[in-house]
Amino acid sequence: MKHALLIYSGGMDSTTMLHEFRQEIALAVNFSYGANHNAQEARCAREQCAALGIELIEIDLAFMGRYFNSALLSGADAIPTGEYDADNMAATVVPFRNGIMLSIAAGLAESRNLDTVMIANHSGDHHIYPDCRPEFISAIQEAISAGSGGKVRLSAPYTSLNKTEIARHGLRLGVDYSRTYSCYKGTDTPCGECATCREREEALREAALSIWGK
Amino acid sequence: MKHALLIYSGGMDSTTMLHEFRQEIALAVNFSYGANHNAQEARCAREQCAALGIELIEIDLAFMGRYFNSALLSGADAIPTGEYDADNMAATVVPFRNGIMLSIAAGLAESRNLDTVMIANHSGDHHIYPDCRPEFISAIQEAISAGSGGKVRLSAPYTSLNKTEIARHGLRLGVDYSRTYSCYKGTDTPCGECATCREREEALREAALSIWGK
Repeated sequence: MKHALLIYSGGMDSTTMLHEFRQEIALAVNFSYGANHNAQEARCAREQCAALGIELIEIDLAFMGRYFNSALLSGADAIPTGEYDADNMAATVVPFRNGIMLSIAAGLAESRNLDTVMIANHSGDHHIYPDCRPEFISAIQEAISAGSGGKVRLSAPYTSLNKTEIARHGLRLGVDYSRTYSCYKGTDTPCGECATCREREEALREAALSIWGK
Repeated sequence: MKHALLIYSGGMDSTTMLHEFRQEIALAVNFSYGANHNAQEARCAREQCAALGIELIEIDLAFMGRYFNSALLSGADAIPTGEYDADNMAATVVPFRNGIMLSIAAGLAESRNLDTVMIANHSGDHHIYPDCRPEFISAIQEAISAGSGGKVRLSAPYTSLNKTEIARHGLRLGVDYSRTYSCYKGTDTPCGECATCREREEALREAALSIWGK
């Protein structure tokens, strides 16, 4: 019996989770919040969900683009290039983004009688994004459990994995990563230069090397 | 220096908080989520904020009306009449509503360099709404602190007060409760029969009695 809701961007990590837990996921939810790459991600999310026969709901949080302060919401030119590290990427924090998506997901799960909300946060983001860290995940899990009267729980099974481990996982499951999107600039063809593109390429290269030696 | 953001419905409780903490509140945020009474509440919120010179942002969460399951989002006829107790009011729970509003408020506060989010939950709602209870407030406070990297804290100073105590507080501050709105049916003239109208009238009557003996 399918019992879970996945917060699903259409990027590498949540697409891997969609495939790995496809037998449990009844509903995927994609959020647009005014980021450059939201439209490209949503296109991938639609394709993936259609291929797996999983219902997708798209929710527009346009007010975040209007009122929130982040380089990720300020056009492609504001996106830093270079390494995917804390100093370089701090400007791309969207304040409390995961908290907002998880809270809406919790309410939606309860409304649909689904007992689990899933999110694909991972350890490679801990140093940059506070709302990807284990202490945040643990606290919001308590809040979701208390605030839903025990009806909904949070599952974040990639919290301690890094992006290479997720990619290795996905390649073994047969995930076609060319049908996912990561570039923070949001261009039709990923720029290949922003920190997110570089992080993605490195993870895929290392994962392929460890599986096939190439 | 004003440093707080208030989640502000335009009802009795949050209007009392707006007046009590007017020296600290830089920004009030009103949410519409598809409930019958949102438009009437928002009208009061605008009036109150204009009178006090406090900025008000209105955020439309229309997706909740579309996707969430609650009598509060299903038209005036779905609102129960009678006593304001758990059995009667359970259908009016909007799943994880306070979690959603608090998460958005936390992100907005961080974006505006405000260090405190305030909410006017109170003890009279604990038995009905899980996301008004102290254990939820405590957990989401942890989540907001962790997820904002320590930049934002939650303040819920009415958590242990009941509605009569809040009304007593407000009457002493000179709050004009005729400029607030509570009725869950959302009619121009409050119905006077729904449980929320009855709860409001009882609190105001008891508070006035304890202050002025009438």
